[in-house]
Amino acid sequence: MTDRSAVRAALKSQRIETPSWAYGNSGTRFKVFRQEGVPRDPYEKLDDAAQVHAATGVAPVVALHIPWDRVEDYAGLRAHAEERGLTLGAINSNVFQDDDYKLGSVTNPDPAVRRKALGHLLECVDIMDATGSRDLKLWFSDGTNYPGQDDIAARQDRLAEALAAVYQRLGDDQRMLLEYKLFEPAFYATDVPDWGTAYAHCLKLGPKAQVVVDTGHHAPGTNIEFIVAFLLREGKLGGFDFNSRFYADDDLMVGAADPFQLFRILYEVVKNGGLRAETGVAFMLDQCHNIEAKIPAIIRSVMNVQEATAKALLVDADALAAAQLAGDVLEANAVLMDAYNTDVRPLLASVREEQGLHPDPMAAYRASGWQQQIVSGRVGGEQAGWGA
Amino acid sequence: MTDRSAVRAALKSQRIETPSWAYGNSGTRFKVFRQEGVPRDPYEKLDDAAQVHAATGVAPVVALHIPWDRVEDYAGLRAHAEERGLTLGAINSNVFQDDDYKLGSVTNPDPAVRRKALGHLLECVDIMDATGSRDLKLWFSDGTNYPGQDDIAARQDRLAEALAAVYQRLGDDQRMLLEYKLFEPAFYATDVPDWGTAYAHCLKLGPKAQVVVDTGHHAPGTNIEFIVAFLLREGKLGGFDFNSRFYADDDLMVGAADPFQLFRILYEVVKNGGLRAETGVAFMLDQCHNIEAKIPAIIRSVMNVQEATAKALLVDADALAAAQLAGDVLEANAVLMDAYNTDVRPLLASVREEQGLHPDPMAAYRASGWQQQIVSGRVGGEQAGWGA
Amino acid sequence: MTDRSAVRAALKSQRIETPSWAYGNSGTRFKVFRQEGVPRDPYEKLDDAAQVHAATGVAPVVALHIPWDRVEDYAGLRAHAEERGLTLGAINSNVFQDDDYKLGSVTNPDPAVRRKALGHLLECVDIMDATGSRDLKLWFSDGTNYPGQDDIAARQDRLAEALAAVYQRLGDDQRMLLEYKLFEPAFYATDVPDWGTAYAHCLKLGPKAQVVVDTGHHAPGTNIEFIVAFLLREGKLGGFDFNSRFYADDDLMVGAADPFQLFRILYEVVKNGGLRAETGVAFMLDQCHNIEAKIPAIIRSVMNVQEATAKALLVDADALAAAQLAGDVLEANAVLMDAYNTDVRPLLASVREEQGLHPDPMAAYRASGWQQQIVSGRVGGEQAGWGA
Amino acid sequence: MTDRSAVRAALKSQRIETPSWAYGNSGTRFKVFRQEGVPRDPYEKLDDAAQVHAATGVAPVVALHIPWDRVEDYAGLRAHAEERGLTLGAINSNVFQDDDYKLGSVTNPDPAVRRKALGHLLECVDIMDATGSRDLKLWFSDGTNYPGQDDIAARQDRLAEALAAVYQRLGDDQRMLLEYKLFEPAFYATDVPDWGTAYAHCLKLGPKAQVVVDTGHHAPGTNIEFIVAFLLREGKLGGFDFNSRFYADDDLMVGAADPFQLFRILYEVVKNGGLRAETGVAFMLDQCHNIEAKIPAIIRSVMNVQEATAKALLVDADALAAAQLAGDVLEANAVLMDAYNTDVRPLLASVREEQGLHPDPMAAYRASGWQQQIVSGRVGGEQAGWGA
Repeated sequence: MTDRSAVRAALKSQRIETPSWAYGNSGTRFKVFRQEGVPRDPYEKLDDAAQVHAATGVAPVVALHIPWDRVEDYAGLRAHAEERGLTLGAINSNVFQDDDYKLGSVTNPDPAVRRKALGHLLECVDIMDATGSRDLKLWFSDGTNYPGQDDIAARQDRLAEALAAVYQRLGDDQRMLLEYKLFEPAFYATDVPDWGTAYAHCLKLGPKAQVVVDTGHHAPGTNIEFIVAFLLREGKLGGFDFNSRFYADDDLMVGAADPFQLFRILYEVVKNGGLRAETGVAFMLDQCHNIEAKIPAIIRSVMNVQEATAKALLVDADALAAAQLAGDVLEANAVLMDAYNTDVRPLLASVREEQGLHPDPMAAYRASGWQQQIVSGRVGGEQAGWGA
Repeated sequence: MTDRSAVRAALKSQRIETPSWAYGNSGTRFKVFRQEGVPRDPYEKLDDAAQVHAATGVAPVVALHIPWDRVEDYAGLRAHAEERGLTLGAINSNVFQDDDYKLGSVTNPDPAVRRKALGHLLECVDIMDATGSRDLKLWFSDGTNYPGQDDIAARQDRLAEALAAVYQRLGDDQRMLLEYKLFEPAFYATDVPDWGTAYAHCLKLGPKAQVVVDTGHHAPGTNIEFIVAFLLREGKLGGFDFNSRFYADDDLMVGAADPFQLFRILYEVVKNGGLRAETGVAFMLDQCHNIEAKIPAIIRSVMNVQEATAKALLVDADALAAAQLAGDVLEANAVLMDAYNTDVRPLLASVREEQGLHPDPMAAYRASGWQQQIVSGRVGGEQAGWGA
Repeated sequence: MTDRSAVRAALKSQRIETPSWAYGNSGTRFKVFRQEGVPRDPYEKLDDAAQVHAATGVAPVVALHIPWDRVEDYAGLRAHAEERGLTLGAINSNVFQDDDYKLGSVTNPDPAVRRKALGHLLECVDIMDATGSRDLKLWFSDGTNYPGQDDIAARQDRLAEALAAVYQRLGDDQRMLLEYKLFEPAFYATDVPDWGTAYAHCLKLGPKAQVVVDTGHHAPGTNIEFIVAFLLREGKLGGFDFNSRFYADDDLMVGAADPFQLFRILYEVVKNGGLRAETGVAFMLDQCHNIEAKIPAIIRSVMNVQEATAKALLVDADALAAAQLAGDVLEANAVLMDAYNTDVRPLLASVREEQGLHPDPMAAYRASGWQQQIVSGRVGGEQAGWGA
Repeated sequence: MTDRSAVRAALKSQRIETPSWAYGNSGTRFKVFRQEGVPRDPYEKLDDAAQVHAATGVAPVVALHIPWDRVEDYAGLRAHAEERGLTLGAINSNVFQDDDYKLGSVTNPDPAVRRKALGHLLECVDIMDATGSRDLKLWFSDGTNYPGQDDIAARQDRLAEALAAVYQRLGDDQRMLLEYKLFEPAFYATDVPDWGTAYAHCLKLGPKAQVVVDTGHHAPGTNIEFIVAFLLREGKLGGFDFNSRFYADDDLMVGAADPFQLFRILYEVVKNGGLRAETGVAFMLDQCHNIEAKIPAIIRSVMNVQEATAKALLVDADALAAAQLAGDVLEANAVLMDAYNTDVRPLLASVREEQGLHPDPMAAYRASGWQQQIVSGRVGGEQAGWGA
């Protein structure tokens, strides 16, 4: 039997971090479709994020992306957030959108480009000092498109050197989260293609370096929950970039493509202590709402993570362990599926009401009038997007 | 034994169509890196294509993309091409870069959008009349990102209706080539995801409708040469969009990722009569040279197709058939591999010299001075790209 | 709003066909683990199938596999079934387990082998006449392991010839269901690798030839529900071989790997009329219970199909259509997900009770004592398996 | 410029290890096709291996598989090998073919089964002492088929415990090579699914534990040469299990499915010092010749590795490095491709002649009369196979 009050407490304490860039425009290489009411600067992104938190109660942290969210006064941005009940989360570095990075950033064969990229990463730690952010999130698009284009091992040496320099700069309460990705935009060899590569680098760097799992960054067939369990066992899971995919890095709403996989991932999180605050696992979203309304899509995504978490918490741990030890394959699977097949929406509605929230975050947002307000109010200026 | 003079004749008669857009800038959703000397209009694209043909002798046809290559005077564009020894090839329609197409073009739930998309397709046939193009190439990005977003079967009905209207408009010497693609930009269900869907529609439309195989548009593990053999057997292979990929629709240079696969594809083409002009198979490139120099990359791609074709032509058909009939697995494989393992570069160099060409097209281009000329000459204006 | 009484009626009328071979031993190329109580002949398989039907009420049809289920007296086997409230379903041909078929059966380069294979297929129709089976299920393992091993197009010719001969032999009320599979046991080119190939052959054969979709036979990333919708639209969906997979043709219990996919598939079935008896879609299981108890695994599988069907039936069609036509991506997705997220187990329990069944088929089976009975009773003899 | 005499010397010194089990029968779960002349015991397997070495001159090492190659007198087996110019290579443990291992071996929830499995692994080290083998190759089929079936992290604990016990037992000149595999026979979660898992365990164990890369054990799209380069950089590449695949773990002849990939892998081996004897990389084959003649298939496989190695050695390292540092994508790729496109068969023929070998190993084998001898001589007895 699961302890329902513990389940409710866990659901109330979970924190889901939303990414500033998901409030802006995004698209594919074929087209970025513009939407009405999209924020024009980081302050407006925070205003939208505050709505997500108001509706859900569990999304008080907002990740920034530099330079997309570059401002003159980070203390002022932090104050803007705090006035809205938000804190600033991970600082996401960007070393892929300058013409200098055509052949790589920290792994570029040209040392001048590497220095420039490293400079940006260190600047991001400066920003963390100003924003109070704990996490530096490092995603490198570095890689090659053609066999022979560059030396795979030499690029690892360059990567290790840059990571060590950044690690050295981190404060006592700061972490670096190293992201991996199989491909895109590099189409032959990516320099951090898989969790093994990220793990090996983090292990050498030390305890402040951890791996971040983006759920869309794996080869077909990869068992993501295995990686989650393994990294938690090693104390090396820094957090998630949640999204979902049917094919490649589709960046759809988390839980939209394979809700059962999301449940299995969160079951391993729960099972291996990843929900406990001291483990430090960051539950971040990283999505592109190319064709759907952005704020409601983010609210839905937060709800999807909550529902998967609730189901994971409902797994009858004793019954499961007993069936596993007995080698009863069908019963062990049935115990897990019983939790998955439970409709947890009433439970979550009730938890929200206990917190003084509307039981249905989507309805709460609709009722807020915010969408109409931004559509009519945000006229003129340039909408935020990946290139902005 | 293969007939070497027949091989040489076949190599001389092969025609490879280059795409106007490959001369312009391209990139990923993360970044488009600009290159120096890139054309600023369709006329300059043709000027570059003429250099590819000058260096290789087998690339006299250039495909256009509407609206990227929209001009006021298509007869003038045609004259510009013909003055350079070129002809205008397939007209590629574009119903994916207008805000109206966010939820689809010919399969959009909104009939007004469908009408607009159909109007564009019919306009493309008008342009074919003016350019003398034989082929209308139809790629639809149409699809959905989320389960439930739209009705899969209803979208097929709408697709069939649009295709029928276009088919009706085709002239006697015109064809429509229907392209399929597994995913991107649609991330849940694409309306023409595979060859089976394209084939089924073409079959109903009639003999002027054929399937085009883009070598980067398949699920992992798909045996592309099987599809080629099958479509040729059915008389339904209209042509290729050649490129190569390690992961998804990477659009790398053809032959760069899996030269053995390219050889196998061209072997099926040769074996099943696809090199014969009357079969009408169009050998088109469709690539993105995101980080490499564009004109040399296109020359290299043409050479890669030629080398794979030469190897395919060198397969000892009698020895192969004998081993196959005898059930000698290793010998049959060995006959095929013997051709593949042959270094055909000397043969192709000799064929080129017979045609009065430089034996090495890459060296010929370097010697031409064209690259320096366009870098210094094409200053100002806006470089052509996917959005231009 | 969905009509609950129609939902209940539909759930009561659904028929799920279980495969005789799933009651016997199976395994991987590495090992077949034996289980206690496994049937030793086709009669005992039917005895087990009767238990599945007793527990679920919706599984009265049992598919046979020839020669695994070859008996002297098919009329007697039929009587044995009917005495237990069962009917005999699809006859599954086997042209892959004779040394003669090493290089193929109906596509073998050797005409004598082709004749032998065809003879077996015709024998299967004879058996259908005796068993009263409607469907001949054709799965060909035919293909090649190495490029060049055989002529891809010639094998299609041979396949077409054999299929035509079998089609000719079918009675008025008999169908042939052509199965496709990407790979295994052929590892280079399979002769019927995808739905397009199966569809093209069935189209030429005529209305008695239809495609069967095995849910484990696709390339990674394939959208199976698209295929289902497409084939239903074309009147060419003959049925399903249900199972589930994380990787290749894993043959796990249906719904175990991706229950959301199963729901999407059944939604397309419901939406496109596939539940109506006159459409003739056969809902068959085709699974391997390598490590789990077989009869309970089959009961669970039947329940999984029922649960997915129930959810599909609960989709609010009007609300969905309205959201789709309005282009409201999030709302349309939400309507679909609302049905998926519903816990339908109480509904199904109630439907079963209305039918006089135990509300929980797993509990019913446990209570029956059958498992203990077969474990103690089926001693001696040779357990049935794939090679038996 | 490459140094041709160094190339020749490297080719002469390469050693390729053939697996005893490839001389016996193998197949898929659907059928094992028997071939004439197949060995009936380990001694006859060695006799066949001696033919492969006689024909190629580079295959003097033979890997054993326990219990398939279990004999009473390992010293006698070793003498049998040495009389034929062979040495005994890696001992491959087998903890997957006993009914006790249905739910796992060293990761089984039942401690008695774990002890049994560990006992077998330790027995394998005993055998190594007797055979003079350097390497213990560990492949675990352990894993689960269904979510929930067992505790992923607990299985890692059990795995680590068993590995530590085996490591402890190793002699000073012995190594353990840990193999990873994505899936099959486990279809949900495999306990050592990827190189990262194997690497993490080996790192903790110490310098005598290294990773073995089976080229057929990866998810689709995995860049294997990246893994090779990474492991060599870390000093953790123990060796290869060579084979090739189009789909899953197809176990086709190495180089048959993607010869360009094999070249890229061997290029990284050469570039990163893996050909040097002191690096200790074992070049082993691990293949299934299900439908092709076994000894010739192994000879062909050895030749394929040699040809890929020769091409890798021919890469102009200086020109490549210069192009890489200059950021000349096309030229760097061209340097690599120039080596790949070279027909190295004449070079290898010449190297063989220098060694007193027939220039064509396939012809040498045909001329030897061995095949006829074993077909006529090996009559009666039971052919060796995976289950033997």
